[in-house]
Amino acid sequence: MNCTPRFPAFLHGGDYNPDQWLEYPEVLEEDIRLMQKAKVNAVSVGIFSWAKLEPEEGKYDFAWLDAVIDRLWAGGIHVVLATPSGARPAWMAQKYPEVLRVGEDFRQAHFGNRHNHCPSSPVFREKTRAIDRALAERYAGHPAVILWHISNEFSGDCRCPACQENFRRFLQKRYGLLEELNRHWWTGFWSMTYTDWAQVEPPSSIGQGANPAMWVDWRRFSTAQCKDFLAMEKETVQAVDPSLPVTANLMHLFWDYDYFDLAEAMDVVSWDAYPSWHIGDDYLEASQFAMTHDLMRSLKDQPFLLMESTPSLVNWQAVNRVKKPGMHLLSSMLPLAQGAQSVMYFQWRKGRGGAEMFHGAVVGHDGTADTRTFRDVTRVGEALEKLAPLYDSPKAPAKVCMLYDWQNKWAIHYAQMGRRENMDYDGTVISHYRALWKLGVNIDFRDMRECTDLSQYQLVIAPMLFMTRGGIEEKLRRFVEQGGTLVMTYLAGTMGEDGLAHLGRTPHSLTDVLGIHTEELDTLTDAQHNSLRWGQRVSRISQVCELIRADTAEVVGTYGEDFYAGTPCLTRNHFGAGEAWYLAARTEDGMLAAWYGELIRALKIPRALPTELPDGVVAQERGGAVFLQNYAPERRIVALPGRMRDLLTDTVAEKEICLPAYGVCVLTAAE
Amino acid sequence: MNCTPRFPAFLHGGDYNPDQWLEYPEVLEEDIRLMQKAKVNAVSVGIFSWAKLEPEEGKYDFAWLDAVIDRLWAGGIHVVLATPSGARPAWMAQKYPEVLRVGEDFRQAHFGNRHNHCPSSPVFREKTRAIDRALAERYAGHPAVILWHISNEFSGDCRCPACQENFRRFLQKRYGLLEELNRHWWTGFWSMTYTDWAQVEPPSSIGQGANPAMWVDWRRFSTAQCKDFLAMEKETVQAVDPSLPVTANLMHLFWDYDYFDLAEAMDVVSWDAYPSWHIGDDYLEASQFAMTHDLMRSLKDQPFLLMESTPSLVNWQAVNRVKKPGMHLLSSMLPLAQGAQSVMYFQWRKGRGGAEMFHGAVVGHDGTADTRTFRDVTRVGEALEKLAPLYDSPKAPAKVCMLYDWQNKWAIHYAQMGRRENMDYDGTVISHYRALWKLGVNIDFRDMRECTDLSQYQLVIAPMLFMTRGGIEEKLRRFVEQGGTLVMTYLAGTMGEDGLAHLGRTPHSLTDVLGIHTEELDTLTDAQHNSLRWGQRVSRISQVCELIRADTAEVVGTYGEDFYAGTPCLTRNHFGAGEAWYLAARTEDGMLAAWYGELIRALKIPRALPTELPDGVVAQERGGAVFLQNYAPERRIVALPGRMRDLLTDTVAEKEICLPAYGVCVLTAAE
Amino acid sequence: MNCTPRFPAFLHGGDYNPDQWLEYPEVLEEDIRLMQKAKVNAVSVGIFSWAKLEPEEGKYDFAWLDAVIDRLWAGGIHVVLATPSGARPAWMAQKYPEVLRVGEDFRQAHFGNRHNHCPSSPVFREKTRAIDRALAERYAGHPAVILWHISNEFSGDCRCPACQENFRRFLQKRYGLLEELNRHWWTGFWSMTYTDWAQVEPPSSIGQGANPAMWVDWRRFSTAQCKDFLAMEKETVQAVDPSLPVTANLMHLFWDYDYFDLAEAMDVVSWDAYPSWHIGDDYLEASQFAMTHDLMRSLKDQPFLLMESTPSLVNWQAVNRVKKPGMHLLSSMLPLAQGAQSVMYFQWRKGRGGAEMFHGAVVGHDGTADTRTFRDVTRVGEALEKLAPLYDSPKAPAKVCMLYDWQNKWAIHYAQMGRRENMDYDGTVISHYRALWKLGVNIDFRDMRECTDLSQYQLVIAPMLFMTRGGIEEKLRRFVEQGGTLVMTYLAGTMGEDGLAHLGRTPHSLTDVLGIHTEELDTLTDAQHNSLRWGQRVSRISQVCELIRADTAEVVGTYGEDFYAGTPCLTRNHFGAGEAWYLAARTEDGMLAAWYGELIRALKIPRALPTELPDGVVAQERGGAVFLQNYAPERRIVALPGRMRDLLTDTVAEKEICLPAYGVCVLTAAE
Repeated sequence: MNCTPRFPAFLHGGDYNPDQWLEYPEVLEEDIRLMQKAKVNAVSVGIFSWAKLEPEEGKYDFAWLDAVIDRLWAGGIHVVLATPSGARPAWMAQKYPEVLRVGEDFRQAHFGNRHNHCPSSPVFREKTRAIDRALAERYAGHPAVILWHISNEFSGDCRCPACQENFRRFLQKRYGLLEELNRHWWTGFWSMTYTDWAQVEPPSSIGQGANPAMWVDWRRFSTAQCKDFLAMEKETVQAVDPSLPVTANLMHLFWDYDYFDLAEAMDVVSWDAYPSWHIGDDYLEASQFAMTHDLMRSLKDQPFLLMESTPSLVNWQAVNRVKKPGMHLLSSMLPLAQGAQSVMYFQWRKGRGGAEMFHGAVVGHDGTADTRTFRDVTRVGEALEKLAPLYDSPKAPAKVCMLYDWQNKWAIHYAQMGRRENMDYDGTVISHYRALWKLGVNIDFRDMRECTDLSQYQLVIAPMLFMTRGGIEEKLRRFVEQGGTLVMTYLAGTMGEDGLAHLGRTPHSLTDVLGIHTEELDTLTDAQHNSLRWGQRVSRISQVCELIRADTAEVVGTYGEDFYAGTPCLTRNHFGAGEAWYLAARTEDGMLAAWYGELIRALKIPRALPTELPDGVVAQERGGAVFLQNYAPERRIVALPGRMRDLLTDTVAEKEICLPAYGVCVLTAAE
Repeated sequence: MNCTPRFPAFLHGGDYNPDQWLEYPEVLEEDIRLMQKAKVNAVSVGIFSWAKLEPEEGKYDFAWLDAVIDRLWAGGIHVVLATPSGARPAWMAQKYPEVLRVGEDFRQAHFGNRHNHCPSSPVFREKTRAIDRALAERYAGHPAVILWHISNEFSGDCRCPACQENFRRFLQKRYGLLEELNRHWWTGFWSMTYTDWAQVEPPSSIGQGANPAMWVDWRRFSTAQCKDFLAMEKETVQAVDPSLPVTANLMHLFWDYDYFDLAEAMDVVSWDAYPSWHIGDDYLEASQFAMTHDLMRSLKDQPFLLMESTPSLVNWQAVNRVKKPGMHLLSSMLPLAQGAQSVMYFQWRKGRGGAEMFHGAVVGHDGTADTRTFRDVTRVGEALEKLAPLYDSPKAPAKVCMLYDWQNKWAIHYAQMGRRENMDYDGTVISHYRALWKLGVNIDFRDMRECTDLSQYQLVIAPMLFMTRGGIEEKLRRFVEQGGTLVMTYLAGTMGEDGLAHLGRTPHSLTDVLGIHTEELDTLTDAQHNSLRWGQRVSRISQVCELIRADTAEVVGTYGEDFYAGTPCLTRNHFGAGEAWYLAARTEDGMLAAWYGELIRALKIPRALPTELPDGVVAQERGGAVFLQNYAPERRIVALPGRMRDLLTDTVAEKEICLPAYGVCVLTAAE
Repeated sequence: MNCTPRFPAFLHGGDYNPDQWLEYPEVLEEDIRLMQKAKVNAVSVGIFSWAKLEPEEGKYDFAWLDAVIDRLWAGGIHVVLATPSGARPAWMAQKYPEVLRVGEDFRQAHFGNRHNHCPSSPVFREKTRAIDRALAERYAGHPAVILWHISNEFSGDCRCPACQENFRRFLQKRYGLLEELNRHWWTGFWSMTYTDWAQVEPPSSIGQGANPAMWVDWRRFSTAQCKDFLAMEKETVQAVDPSLPVTANLMHLFWDYDYFDLAEAMDVVSWDAYPSWHIGDDYLEASQFAMTHDLMRSLKDQPFLLMESTPSLVNWQAVNRVKKPGMHLLSSMLPLAQGAQSVMYFQWRKGRGGAEMFHGAVVGHDGTADTRTFRDVTRVGEALEKLAPLYDSPKAPAKVCMLYDWQNKWAIHYAQMGRRENMDYDGTVISHYRALWKLGVNIDFRDMRECTDLSQYQLVIAPMLFMTRGGIEEKLRRFVEQGGTLVMTYLAGTMGEDGLAHLGRTPHSLTDVLGIHTEELDTLTDAQHNSLRWGQRVSRISQVCELIRADTAEVVGTYGEDFYAGTPCLTRNHFGAGEAWYLAARTEDGMLAAWYGELIRALKIPRALPTELPDGVVAQERGGAVFLQNYAPERRIVALPGRMRDLLTDTVAEKEICLPAYGVCVLTAAE
């Protein structure tokens, strides 16, 4: 499977757990009726169903699932079929306690919760393969089934003896000789030198707790473990029918695994998006999720699925707020605008018990369609039908590429420097993304290994590129040389992929491209600030001030305060046919918006709407349609470049359009 | 023992630990002299004395206790005799390590501290029974001994193999078949289905950590374990003399156990009250403790004992403040006003060492009576003598009943919804209580199972009645039908006692009584607010806004903000001969005071003083006497309905009385 | 070794880890060149080198260290030679897991990190002795080697079976009979009485967690363990050459051990000072470190070494800021002014990996001398050469003595009273110290056991002398009787060294000396305050208000608020030929500065500069030279008593001198 799977339509539906309702046959019947009413065309079935599918070791019970899938298909509803490995049944934990995960402090978990299997356990793998095979043999050919949903929200790691052994094997493969491991982990520090592979244990707060390179390798290993497990499940189910595609639902900017790496083991990327609306600024929240949507699209550079979202609220945040009128449609159009092919929910129906019994669902405990949530969901179903022409129009090719790299994120965190626990890589990437998103620009993400060819882009942005890997220095050099515009920031080129700090001047191998070198890293408390003076403007600086020296670069902006007032903070260097910018400090949104605005205009990069948009409003283009979104709590009037038709309402607007609070429209040029 | 025990007088005294002072015979002599001087008439002896009573396994030493009790009795002082099970001796932990408790994470404690026995341990039970029997045989007939004090401040739970086995037995009794347990715990969620009773373990952060119904059952089980242990001790000591009553000292709105249930295993309720004076608003603090006093009185619907309080300060709060002049008498009158029959202290004399060596005591390390604390205590002793006529006048029958239900509290906490960790059941109940207490109204508490007959009440208040149990729906329906006034609030009737969410419209089985049904639950961050508009008034709303629809109810108040502005927030419904109110949001004290003020006036419910009282002043009636209490840091002038005599000073006031800061008087109609 | 070791000069250098760079021979060569350039004359070698020195059990490899030391010596650089016991090699943890420490919760650590050996482990001791002996035999006679650096930053404790056994032995020695232990630990409380030594375990949060006396004894034991280990290493290396002195680097006001006790096991005290400049008020920060410098000097009453400091920034604080221009010289002169004989750094060169790869170093990853840090360090090297005449002029004898006592600190913390976790002993001592430091007064520290002869002092200050020990009452009485001035504060004389509260009036045995006795301890929340009225002045009071009664003392100041307004807060008592002050509340810096200013003037105690200094400026005298230091972020003009020469710049100032921001000069009378 190397091409993008094609589904019958934009998928609309969600997690469906009929196995919790087998004693309520009238509910199961009613479900189909309500799904049809809500314009649901696909549901995810079988997540966490292991105990129902294999109630006793080796004895499968598929009768109930046969009925469920047939009933759905009879109702015209497709099935995303899950493998049940997200939680093992109690009998397995009882008979084979080694399937239970061992924690960070080397203590083994007891039976309970979910996502806590040991990924190395031979018996857990064997049991998973067996049930996956049985499921595939039974359902892979069913016309209702359109996609495999492997396990659920993979997470975490294990330190059991088998995983420890696998960790050592991973390191042996990576380093060959123990001497090489010692060299890269710099074990001379604190006399940590290993003289026997058996001495190497996973990092732990009660063991080896503070070696940065070791921690990064542990995260790489955890990714490899997860990927290997996912690949095993994929192979198992596709051994029966190679044409049925596979996904695994991911989670936001998830810490544990390198998603660029993990995505290689699936055919289509899907993820679970849970914004916290109406807690803080909804526009900021939306930009963060827009970024992750683009990132998910970029993982395989193809359309992705929104596998879970809430039709109303969740139950696990500190404060759980209901969505205000309009917000459900608006927040469902957000992923569509960034390239999603579905709007799916957790969950179809609220369970009567369990940890998430009060998580939002399309159908509540009252069981009726007479709720605001049900009507909101139905409206999204209708919208998806109206937007059907866009299904085959994915997000247009981007001219801007941002680097987001999990291994770099880990390296920054474990490096212990600056503001230590709070260098805020994610927040920084999001703030650069936001400035461009607000401009209506299309953006791709790449990690350092993935960005093999940057020539398709005009602008490459690489915030906080602390750990360089995959020959990124050479790639960026070539990109600029050939006429590209590069933006880099503080921390660039400090460490190598091998875990060792670069020797010599930094940013490593890029000082001539950037025309600067870095000297010191000052960080500020939350109460401290500096300023950037550029042109006639002054912008506030927080958190990080890198002290740099301009060698060949033009000094565009300088620090305004402290003993380094007047020294360079923002520089531009001509190199080859292109130019390279360096921003040495953390600046606020306003500065980024203004600066990128000028860059985008200068580079003539296309925008969804060329006009200035009011606060809270964003426009994104997909397949020639402009998704105009208002995240402000008040109505906004937007000037239009001409007559445009709103696909959602089939109305035409002339010069301007008025969006209500949390309003959205999808505009195409009106004939 | 089914009637209220009668003691010789209001008890005044406290925990007395002569076993710590056996090497200081002059101190033991001096104690008697000082007790007499301080008007002490009863002390609690033997708490934590196991190591002294049984210094070696099976070898009892009662000689010192004989002397102590005889010396006390010779001095005219009664004895509350404790069983020593609050802490086992070191030799027992050494020889029988299974008596040590196993924690939440399945790790066994080492010897140390207190209250950490395993309640299931056969050997701990056997040793407890043996020493209890020996104590009873020796002292039950002693004229000084008036009450058994079982163990001390029962708390916590244990996850050792024996307790796990008991937990499974408890569940077997509750559910019969494992299928039923699976059904009620909704184990289909996250594939948690049990197929063997042996798979069921206690909830744990490293095991099954997130099932609401399981957690509630664990708390029920822990209550049952504690009750069974208490009952065992009670039976043991009363096997010798069934006429000597039994108590166990409780703790505030204690999380671990259902006190309504636990109270069944004792003859008289006692508790340990430790307000934090002078940290925040003393009036708010007083109202909270007044509520708990009323709750303790309500547990068995009979007078209760204040078993511990501090004569000065404690040592275990973050900041420990001394009581300001007047506060000791005032805070000692507070429980009396709510129906207490004693003022007892922890502790008589400060120990020279140990964890609480700086906890306040009647006698300090200086050993003298020449302290402010000793004089304050003596003044309380004198006051109790003056109030002797009230001993046989318990709190008058209340016309208002509030529901406070431990199982409901647990259910709300474990349910994971809304503001998750912070739905604040206790705080909400207290705020409703406070409004009525301020009005001088008598209030009883019931839990859902206990409130078999509500017909004696005019007004029943059921805040946040999330989990319904004991047929409460039917009881409330009947109460309103027959003319009662019912107040309910958000969350009402959401879950059943069986752990499952109610299906259909909520509040379950009460929508016709209330004339409304609930639709959505919005919760707010601490920075967010809404408002209630009722009549000409506007009150602030915080934390919780439930969205409801009025079916037959009259809309008395509406929301002022957000998209649900104008929808019902406060409603009244006529049903049968009565009426039912519903308050859908959390409102502030001012709103509750005004609203309940109108209700109380309309219902003509009697008040201690019918006049408006100044800020900080509260009046409560007991046995025809009005306890007029000033919690303000300034003097207050209170208008009186006529000539009244202050029993404490034997002075008569006409039209008004002036209370100094922290002043108190006990007024009766003057002849 | 009982006299102060004499080194060739003020030492300038730092931790040098060539063992991490053995694969980079060009770096090792470059190191010598750069050290010479930076005026480095001594480096610490071999810290954490065990894995390199003994790569396999019993097989030593000294070749690399031979070369390193020879190369240094050829370059004219001295060596401080470390024993490697700060971290054991991996093979040792693998073969002898008992060398790994057992934690507070009785769980054994896995291999990793540092400073986590078991101090009792026979095998760890044997291995340490063997390698120490081998090092001594090889290098003790090397002309480069001037000092032994034992282990590194001793810390922590262990609860393994061997340590438990040692704990019991320690207690047996201290108490003899178990009955005596029971008596002093007051085990009657909570029935904790021990009947078999084997029942006694270390304190633990999962065992015996709350006995104050036990905790203090545990800290005493931990000190004894550490001291015994240090003594073992000292004896081992000095068995070869008794003339080579020994130090162990200490850490600030470190909690774990009694440094007065520990210092007895070394020949010269050294410590690692890491102020957090530019985070808060630099003047406050400086005063805190000045205090610790004086304390370190006082431990053995002889000059001390600054063993570690950072040449730029650290990497382990929440926010790590670079030093502003001037600050490195200023902060290096601070210890000199208080009596240090060295300025040493962690570390010479930044490692390429490991936990502290981004900790500041003289040489960074760029490997050049062309950095601000390198220039700052060189400037300090030059300054030390200019100050050479001061090497043999230690700090002048002080007339003021402050009591700082580790056991008192522990006792206050474990006692559980007042503001419990926050009585702030260290902060209180520092605030008294600051007032005197600002006045330019020389100050010695003593603990209660050490202060055998107070007659050399005019003023003795004993803040929060909660636990009295070492006969301090008698020492203070004699001091006042003979004409001394004593200052005591709240909490004085409450507990005895034996763990028991003093009986009778407090301050124990000092009520006649002070002319007061204490009655109650009120503590305040952070939001609450009182005031001190003394003379015409009013000062704010925070945190602690002790209520006292003046017996013979003159009341100099009274409380301004609360019910104890008007009662004594500051008193003075004439006793014998001297006088004793008592300050009952925590007052702010302004009050202490004014009050001590009057005392110092009245007592005619000499000051570095008699004039009033501007804010942020401090003057300290050493060997006739005045270290004038400006911690303000702006320049300051200071009036001079006459013509003075700045040793650092060799310039002469007349009436006044202008210090830039963070400026420093070292002034002597100009001829």
